[in-house]
Amino acid sequence: MGSAENRVAPRDAGTGLGSTLQHGHIKTTDKRLLRGARTRELVLRHAVDLASLDGLDNVTFGRLATEVGLSKAGIQTLFKAKEALQLATVRYARRMFIDAVIRPARSMPPGVARLRALVDHWAEYATAPLFTGGCFRAANLADFDSRPGPVRDELYHDQQEWTETLAGELRHAVATGEIGELDVDLAAFQIDAVLCAANTALRMGDDDAINKVYRVVEGMLMPPRR
Amino acid sequence: MGSAENRVAPRDAGTGLGSTLQHGHIKTTDKRLLRGARTRELVLRHAVDLASLDGLDNVTFGRLATEVGLSKAGIQTLFKAKEALQLATVRYARRMFIDAVIRPARSMPPGVARLRALVDHWAEYATAPLFTGGCFRAANLADFDSRPGPVRDELYHDQQEWTETLAGELRHAVATGEIGELDVDLAAFQIDAVLCAANTALRMGDDDAINKVYRVVEGMLMPPRR
Repeated sequence: MGSAENRVAPRDAGTGLGSTLQHGHIKTTDKRLLRGARTRELVLRHAVDLASLDGLDNVTFGRLATEVGLSKAGIQTLFKAKEALQLATVRYARRMFIDAVIRPARSMPPGVARLRALVDHWAEYATAPLFTGGCFRAANLADFDSRPGPVRDELYHDQQEWTETLAGELRHAVATGEIGELDVDLAAFQIDAVLCAANTALRMGDDDAINKVYRVVEGMLMPPRR
Repeated sequence: MGSAENRVAPRDAGTGLGSTLQHGHIKTTDKRLLRGARTRELVLRHAVDLASLDGLDNVTFGRLATEVGLSKAGIQTLFKAKEALQLATVRYARRMFIDAVIRPARSMPPGVARLRALVDHWAEYATAPLFTGGCFRAANLADFDSRPGPVRDELYHDQQEWTETLAGELRHAVATGEIGELDVDLAAFQIDAVLCAANTALRMGDDDAINKVYRVVEGMLMPPRR
């Protein structure tokens, strides 16, 4: 549980907002920083939508400049290189995922209740999409899996963290006897796999996809045999 | 079973080779057709690798011309438009998948044996990749799921057909009492989901991915309770 809290602690998504605002008063330099941070936020929010729809490869300075209505040079000053922009986009999407899916589930007790809350919030996240193109990770991981480098590593890290969050709740549920013995890592792998498949199915108009997710998850939450 | 045979019957993948060769003798016109068909074959084989690695968006006349060493105009003459080229690439990949995974499994009796053969051949297909970037469908479906149009429809059709092939064998196994009662469509959805996830995991260097697939599939093949 404690480790689950650590796992999902948001890293700096690179907006710089936190460090600028935490002083409580805003000086002139801070104002300029704040303006930069706001632009960064605006650009990244759009980049995430673009990447969820058309893939991270289409997240370019030129396209963002046109679509957000800023100068290409201005965006380049903020992010320097295309890869840095892609990485910042992945981290921004990760922070949005944590806020939408992981954080709200923390109010539930660990184990089965929190696992169900995670799946519920994931279902909302995938159905009324936070990102225009649906699940950000699913859309981009399949793209980058054969392309070694920092962007792939970041996407993979996110997925591992998410799967480990699911496994943590399952492990807790087994340890406290809420559910029967289970290959926890295999079950978490399966849940993540089914969520990814459901995300694709949803995009294709399969309205039964979320229902399938619930049936698979509930099938794993059987009480121990007495 | 009969319907399974129909489901996997290869449609014309667009090489034209079949119709050119079936006459048994080759006339002058046929020679020219044959040359065109061979070029088509060469281009599509490369396009499939390219799409499995970098996505169908990167399958362009210009890039193929450079990499295959043909003129851009020549490739354009064969395929006309980019979308037609993408569709031909999807159909070519589909034919390769049928040859590598579905056809060899047909020699096994329907039901559990054939399902296991399908999974075995899929594991070979994903491990010693037929396509440079691993599973073609997985790589491109996630990309196109939010982009309605003929390419998405073709990819989705392939996936549905594959899932239905898996479901057909499960249905047969339940009907003949080889395995216990099972929600066949849900199980097929899960198997396909786990295969896609394993494909990504393999690309990331997770050597346990195929093992996970077997554990999930075997978990579904429990004998009926007496």
